[in-house]
Amino acid sequence: MKLFSINTLLLLFVLISFSSSGYAEDGYRLWLRYDKLADPAKVAAYRNAVSQIVLDGQSETIQVAREELTLGLKGLLGTDVSFVNQATKEGTLIVGTPSTSKLIASLNLKNQLATIGNEGFIIQRTKVGTTQNIVIAANTDVGVLYGVFHFLRLIQTHQDISAVNSVNTPKINHRILNHWDNLNRTVERGYAGASLWDWHKLPDYTSPRYKDYARANASVGINGTVLTNVNANALILTPQYLEKVAALANIFRPYGIRVYLTARFSAPVEMGGLKTADPLDPQVIAWWKQKTEEIYTYVPDFGGFLVKANSEGQPGPQNYGRTHADGANMLADAVGPKGGIVMWRAFVYDNKIPDDRAKQAYTEFKPLDGTFRKNVLVQVKNGAVDFQPREPFHPLFGAMPKTPMMMEFQITQEYLGFATHMVFLASLFKETLYADTYAKGKGSEVAKVIDRSLDKHELTGIAGVANIGDERNWCGHPFGQANWYAFGRLAWDHTLSEDQIADEWLRMTFSNDNRFLKPVKEMMLASRETLVNYMTPLGLHHIMGYNHHYGPGPWVNQASRPDWNSVYYHKADSIGVGFDRTTKGSDAVSQYFPPVRDMFNSTQTCPEKFLLWFHHVPWDYKTQSGRILWDELCYRYYGGAKSVQQMQQTWNTIQPMIDAERFVHVKDLLKVQEKEARWWRDACVLYFQSFSKRPIPSDLEKPPYPLEHYVKIKHLFVPGI
Amino acid sequence: MKLFSINTLLLLFVLISFSSSGYAEDGYRLWLRYDKLADPAKVAAYRNAVSQIVLDGQSETIQVAREELTLGLKGLLGTDVSFVNQATKEGTLIVGTPSTSKLIASLNLKNQLATIGNEGFIIQRTKVGTTQNIVIAANTDVGVLYGVFHFLRLIQTHQDISAVNSVNTPKINHRILNHWDNLNRTVERGYAGASLWDWHKLPDYTSPRYKDYARANASVGINGTVLTNVNANALILTPQYLEKVAALANIFRPYGIRVYLTARFSAPVEMGGLKTADPLDPQVIAWWKQKTEEIYTYVPDFGGFLVKANSEGQPGPQNYGRTHADGANMLADAVGPKGGIVMWRAFVYDNKIPDDRAKQAYTEFKPLDGTFRKNVLVQVKNGAVDFQPREPFHPLFGAMPKTPMMMEFQITQEYLGFATHMVFLASLFKETLYADTYAKGKGSEVAKVIDRSLDKHELTGIAGVANIGDERNWCGHPFGQANWYAFGRLAWDHTLSEDQIADEWLRMTFSNDNRFLKPVKEMMLASRETLVNYMTPLGLHHIMGYNHHYGPGPWVNQASRPDWNSVYYHKADSIGVGFDRTTKGSDAVSQYFPPVRDMFNSTQTCPEKFLLWFHHVPWDYKTQSGRILWDELCYRYYGGAKSVQQMQQTWNTIQPMIDAERFVHVKDLLKVQEKEARWWRDACVLYFQSFSKRPIPSDLEKPPYPLEHYVKIKHLFVPGI
Repeated sequence: MKLFSINTLLLLFVLISFSSSGYAEDGYRLWLRYDKLADPAKVAAYRNAVSQIVLDGQSETIQVAREELTLGLKGLLGTDVSFVNQATKEGTLIVGTPSTSKLIASLNLKNQLATIGNEGFIIQRTKVGTTQNIVIAANTDVGVLYGVFHFLRLIQTHQDISAVNSVNTPKINHRILNHWDNLNRTVERGYAGASLWDWHKLPDYTSPRYKDYARANASVGINGTVLTNVNANALILTPQYLEKVAALANIFRPYGIRVYLTARFSAPVEMGGLKTADPLDPQVIAWWKQKTEEIYTYVPDFGGFLVKANSEGQPGPQNYGRTHADGANMLADAVGPKGGIVMWRAFVYDNKIPDDRAKQAYTEFKPLDGTFRKNVLVQVKNGAVDFQPREPFHPLFGAMPKTPMMMEFQITQEYLGFATHMVFLASLFKETLYADTYAKGKGSEVAKVIDRSLDKHELTGIAGVANIGDERNWCGHPFGQANWYAFGRLAWDHTLSEDQIADEWLRMTFSNDNRFLKPVKEMMLASRETLVNYMTPLGLHHIMGYNHHYGPGPWVNQASRPDWNSVYYHKADSIGVGFDRTTKGSDAVSQYFPPVRDMFNSTQTCPEKFLLWFHHVPWDYKTQSGRILWDELCYRYYGGAKSVQQMQQTWNTIQPMIDAERFVHVKDLLKVQEKEARWWRDACVLYFQSFSKRPIPSDLEKPPYPLEHYVKIKHLFVPGI
Repeated sequence: MKLFSINTLLLLFVLISFSSSGYAEDGYRLWLRYDKLADPAKVAAYRNAVSQIVLDGQSETIQVAREELTLGLKGLLGTDVSFVNQATKEGTLIVGTPSTSKLIASLNLKNQLATIGNEGFIIQRTKVGTTQNIVIAANTDVGVLYGVFHFLRLIQTHQDISAVNSVNTPKINHRILNHWDNLNRTVERGYAGASLWDWHKLPDYTSPRYKDYARANASVGINGTVLTNVNANALILTPQYLEKVAALANIFRPYGIRVYLTARFSAPVEMGGLKTADPLDPQVIAWWKQKTEEIYTYVPDFGGFLVKANSEGQPGPQNYGRTHADGANMLADAVGPKGGIVMWRAFVYDNKIPDDRAKQAYTEFKPLDGTFRKNVLVQVKNGAVDFQPREPFHPLFGAMPKTPMMMEFQITQEYLGFATHMVFLASLFKETLYADTYAKGKGSEVAKVIDRSLDKHELTGIAGVANIGDERNWCGHPFGQANWYAFGRLAWDHTLSEDQIADEWLRMTFSNDNRFLKPVKEMMLASRETLVNYMTPLGLHHIMGYNHHYGPGPWVNQASRPDWNSVYYHKADSIGVGFDRTTKGSDAVSQYFPPVRDMFNSTQTCPEKFLLWFHHVPWDYKTQSGRILWDELCYRYYGGAKSVQQMQQTWNTIQPMIDAERFVHVKDLLKVQEKEARWWRDACVLYFQSFSKRPIPSDLEKPPYPLEHYVKIKHLFVPGI
């Protein structure tokens, strides 16, 4: 009989398990890949630290925590770690809550557990008798699940766990994805294929992706999902669809994820046969109450409603002479008894064209402060216009201290290159979260407005408009996954740095190899500034293609309403460029607290990145570089495009360190990004040159075509609408 | 040092390679799974038979043949078979053409090769010196590739190759998929997600799926693909899109697949700025000539055009008082010099409502016989109405002997349960192909009309409307893949039996285990008759939901044209049901040759499966079972629905034999199919009962709701439109 040594075997195992599957690295597994760690010393150390597991509890959530531990440890360490009843030996991983595990209850964690709330967890070294072990403890099963994901992440990212001591609790209660998914499976501003929700086959057939979606969300602490588009269809509220919603909710529930729906404000008329949707009408109130009770029969832990009302043609309370608060409160009273909430969007603009659209949300909502029910959140976009590559923080943050303000970020890259540009959005998120509102003096950052620290609201929330579709890799661009990840991590803990988030994601998604990590992380961290430079430098905004928002369109001036035109926003003329929002202009600056107002109001103190947002600046204005504005604008555009070429070079260097499929995928998309960056650069520089009448600096190559060429480019069938 | 026996190792290998990948059996690999064969004796025998490979040639096609052999043999046999220069030992697989391989040229295959044309291949035992070997020989590289796929199939399906002797050549030249894919990535009558063609990212990013699509097609001998919907958009003919088309063509070319496009007949007006699209207008002729030449600069082997003209609102030559032949010939002259063809669809019906829509194609096209250019095929649907679950063969087959007739089958299940019903369409395809037209006396089957055997046309073709989308498993239903497979296999060789095709597909896709094969094959082979019974038994047709074609709709009577109504087709009244197409009725029967006409014309000789297609039959008519028509109709509907329950039971029994993921997927879809079969049964029986005024036979359970319930069901956002 021929015999083999264990080392020969291990080598063979590795070869076989990598080669025989026939599957390529298609990105489906996201950051939860759990491939065997490459460093044998690390593997040995982790195996010693986790020799067996005690996990008590029987709930569905505990079951999925067990599944995840099994899958994760088997993958990362290549061993089946046994589940046992007692911490009989060194290196037992003890997991659970004091109420379901006597062992956990015996560990003297009471004081610590008292500080971490319903979703937090503790991971630390602990002794049982004479053995050294690690405990993952929480007050609830979902806290346990979050702890399990965190623990697996520590291993997956090569962290030292020999002295692990993590007390971890989310800073914001409601961490929610907003899916702008239509019932016909198109996704508004979605660039990753069709909607994940296959309504036609639900509830009978439930794709395995639903569970993997829930795993991914839970792994970063996302605990809610709004399934449907804010431009809502009342059909979702019919029994035919509620049955389908329930099937999804049942899959998400063990992962701590509650389901929310968008409420079409006119549903009582469209579905209920009422003559009005007036929120103060008793029949309307009764209709929503009954409808809500019906929803709870399908989904007992239904989270509540997200509402876009009186905005871009959507119906709302103003149709009946009522306020946003009247509308929100009526729905809040319907869901309140069951613990539901209402997220009422402040992204409003109506048919009266204001002098400055950036001012409208503040103007409409600030007077309503203090009039909303306790279970209403006002959901505010990060900036006052619309998810531009860069905007100053929304002036409503800090302006409504009696109302819980919910942040709305856009993860899908509507204005940031769709799913073909590599842009790491953590930089954008952090920039807004750490802008200082001065609402209660220096140190009143936006983050403190939305978490409980500034105004002590019990209710806190943050939303991200999802970039997820049914493409195999979920987000279209392999690096789009990083933005889903970053949103979740920051929603849980906004103090995490961009650097740490990028580092974690790259390690989990690609490799712990420093030769890969260092250059790619640098590229990621610079990527948002790169995009701002080739699209909208120096505070420019809203100059993209009409309607589909694809490509440059600074010349757009024929839209059906003025504030859909690019010229409305950049106001280029022979003198200069930029929107005068100072006290001498639209006075939007005065929506900010005085120190911020004053800073933005003067070109001397206004950060240059927001210069043209707040000021109409002469072409020969001297910028911080010493160059005149026109030249600076050119160098920004050219610099942005050039940075993409550098990204391409960087990416080419890491080819040996990762799999061929994802390497080629990203490489091809960088090709698209490079082309489109030049398209933006050339179109914008030529367009603004038609006003500045100044030459492009001589050391910059000239655009290959005249302006008319770019103006003439028409794109039909652009995705995302 | 601890040592292990080879048996322990093998067990471990198997466990690891199945469990560690983290990937589930999601159906992506189609029938080309190449998993290691389970039977060690078979593996040993195949390894002996293929100990090394001599494969000469450098073309891209030979390279992909080499790739496929490597992938297939490594997967199936678990070994890397070496490629060598000489047949130095027993069991050399010798692959190639006489023109690129001296070894092949030396093998005395000349006479055999002379019989197999450009795409055929020979696989047989051969001696080189004293060694026994196997040769795969062809006249062309693509013939070699087809031979390689066939050889791998023999191994994958456990065939004995010890005396292999296959001389295999396709019976039809053009074997083409028709994609009804729109440029916005919706797919008309597509139920498997969005279009595979991601136009937005093409040409820069080309999904790996494009290559796997080409592999799958080549493996069954499909050699052409029409990328765009027959309801055509002229935009595909612009440089912006031709660049994208070229990127796809480049990927498909090595696999012997030519790309075709649909031509919007009014393109010269819409794109070219001409005032007319009159096919006899010199400017129009010149425009298409120039456009075609432009296309060939992008795609040097462009296959030609597929055209839907003067049908369902599409523009066409009749708009200018010209005939279909005028239109087709004009395009044929444009593509002819480059070797292109025109496939001109006979599925026409215009705004004048005929007495019987089933007659219209014949009426319009038969007079044109002999007037088409040599490079025109007239593409005819299998039946005269529209891809119903069962139709008699189209009377045009055999009626235009001077014109090459191309068969158009629908693989996507527009009228056969979308992607949620398991229906094996080989039965439908074969039923049509082997219907006898009597065009040249008995034995003039439809198959002989479309292959070269009856009318000796040089040009032959067969088309299948694809059921492929970007869902992970390509076709939505795991068994939908079988219909793609069956179309390809029958396009190559229509003499293959349904049984053999099902057997091959099941073995390749699931398992060679007889305990699985036998029951599942039986279920597949019965599945089409099952569906006909619960949807449209006894010759009923076109009684589905309006517009979206989802679910039953025998009551539909308000469509914007009479021949879109169900009542137009079933004509149920107090006396009976069915469309009188006899010589005393619409006389559609007289479009068939006399023996067929006479058979269909009498209820005595008309096959019962077509009874209500050709006859308006009294409710108390005595059917072959001895039951009156009404009772027989009830038993058919109930029997169909019951058969689906039996399918469910059968499927449950095979759970231990296959992977959990596909087991559950099919099980869930059978749940949908069972519900919908009952829905069809109850709705149709209750509806027809409102005319027959007879009771449902007492041994059949009563429908749970009254007819109004079914009439009221409204479905919005049905996929496929």
